[in-house]
Amino acid sequence: MTREQLFAQIQQKRSFLCIGLDTDPAKIPAHLHSAADPVLEFNRQIIDATHDLCVAYKPNLAFYESLGPKGWETLAQTLDYIPEGLFTIADAKRGDIGNTSSMYAKAFFETLGCDAVTVAPYMGEDSVTPFLNFEGKWVIMLALTSNAGSLNFQMLELQNRELLFEKVIRTAQKWGSADQLMYVVGATQTTHLRKVRELAPDHFLLVPGIGAQGGDLEAVARFGMNRQCGLLVNASRSILYAGRGKDFAQQARAAAQQVQQQMAELLERHFSQA
Amino acid sequence: MTREQLFAQIQQKRSFLCIGLDTDPAKIPAHLHSAADPVLEFNRQIIDATHDLCVAYKPNLAFYESLGPKGWETLAQTLDYIPEGLFTIADAKRGDIGNTSSMYAKAFFETLGCDAVTVAPYMGEDSVTPFLNFEGKWVIMLALTSNAGSLNFQMLELQNRELLFEKVIRTAQKWGSADQLMYVVGATQTTHLRKVRELAPDHFLLVPGIGAQGGDLEAVARFGMNRQCGLLVNASRSILYAGRGKDFAQQARAAAQQVQQQMAELLERHFSQA
Repeated sequence: MTREQLFAQIQQKRSFLCIGLDTDPAKIPAHLHSAADPVLEFNRQIIDATHDLCVAYKPNLAFYESLGPKGWETLAQTLDYIPEGLFTIADAKRGDIGNTSSMYAKAFFETLGCDAVTVAPYMGEDSVTPFLNFEGKWVIMLALTSNAGSLNFQMLELQNRELLFEKVIRTAQKWGSADQLMYVVGATQTTHLRKVRELAPDHFLLVPGIGAQGGDLEAVARFGMNRQCGLLVNASRSILYAGRGKDFAQQARAAAQQVQQQMAELLERHFSQA
Repeated sequence: MTREQLFAQIQQKRSFLCIGLDTDPAKIPAHLHSAADPVLEFNRQIIDATHDLCVAYKPNLAFYESLGPKGWETLAQTLDYIPEGLFTIADAKRGDIGNTSSMYAKAFFETLGCDAVTVAPYMGEDSVTPFLNFEGKWVIMLALTSNAGSLNFQMLELQNRELLFEKVIRTAQKWGSADQLMYVVGATQTTHLRKVRELAPDHFLLVPGIGAQGGDLEAVARFGMNRQCGLLVNASRSILYAGRGKDFAQQARAAAQQVQQQMAELLERHFSQA
């Protein structure tokens, strides 16, 4: 999917919502446990109920890997079920030396057919660039995450007074264009979003951390939006587990709709000013 | 496996060799392609031919993931095939926010039954510590890797003149003891091994990069060995693909034996001086 296609979808749906398919077997409604594949059944109903309200789905690989080989079947079938035109992100946070990163890229872009994969920057250029060699595919690199541990290393100050996450973005800007590279910036990090936008004005940002993690959508939009929206804001638990009964999919839809409506207002405000 | 058990195995086998099962279907001998599962058949023959010469096996997840759901079956069956008493490392380089890291830990320690998993430090404490909550299991954290890209971030100098990888080790020393935490330090980084040992005198180091990547085993031993050896040195391609014909397993054994003999000498030299 191209950046223009992604922006067109955002305009059409008036949404920049990404729904994280972090499906935990322990949290899905009891009545689904009799299904042949409860996680797949849950995902299908969530997708049916929400696909007109979001522009992307982001399955988190950990939840599928913890189920063993069967989990990968469930993941592959979930990805197959996502309607054409939605952006799919394998939230895998991979990164390894060159030839291994190429194998990961093959796993996510070719075997699973995802549009994007999240990668970790610690191993540097030759761990990231193999993911950038796939036409029409995207790399989403960790920059500033939403968790407490982001303080340990990402916020360290370097000799030139730059923070590590700033250096990570500034360096990666040379590796990939805004048509193939995005950054992860947590919604809890709005004070730093302005700096991220200085460093990467045109790149899309994947923003986790609203909903269960407490980030503020309005602040994210104020500091993070660019002329093509430039944001994919993710919510997982607050939508997936909005209800725990037989009506869980309707409850998920209601939760997604609430976010989408706020996004529609933020988009209107941003583009009427622009 | 405890640290003492690992050291006992090293003494008994006079080896601190870890064999990386980075099995690439494109590189395995042609006559295996008629097997029901060529990768599994290759791994079995490699394990049969080498398990008395090494103390650990390290399957690299990327190679199995690139094969889709079937690859995970192959991985699980490969791990089942490794004889009792050998140390097994899932080279996965995972790391995510807390609840997700717990799912990954469950995937590798419980579903697959590995002794250890490699993790990436970028997301900080709450991405690493969930892996440390499993009795008898190990976390192997990336510190200083063997690839060119290690220069991008790991070698950055911080305000206090410390390098990032030093800060990573110094910080992680508070998270886990030498009985549950190891570090990845590339064999190409021998100039920094002395510093690593200052920071983490008792921890085992997993050292990739000898063989195909060109690291120097003798220098690794000189600067990295501690009173329990404290090293697991990995070789992958130089052993797996030592031969490409019907005798590939014998060729792999010969290549492993060569490394093991050098290791036996290095161990003898080190412990006769100690």
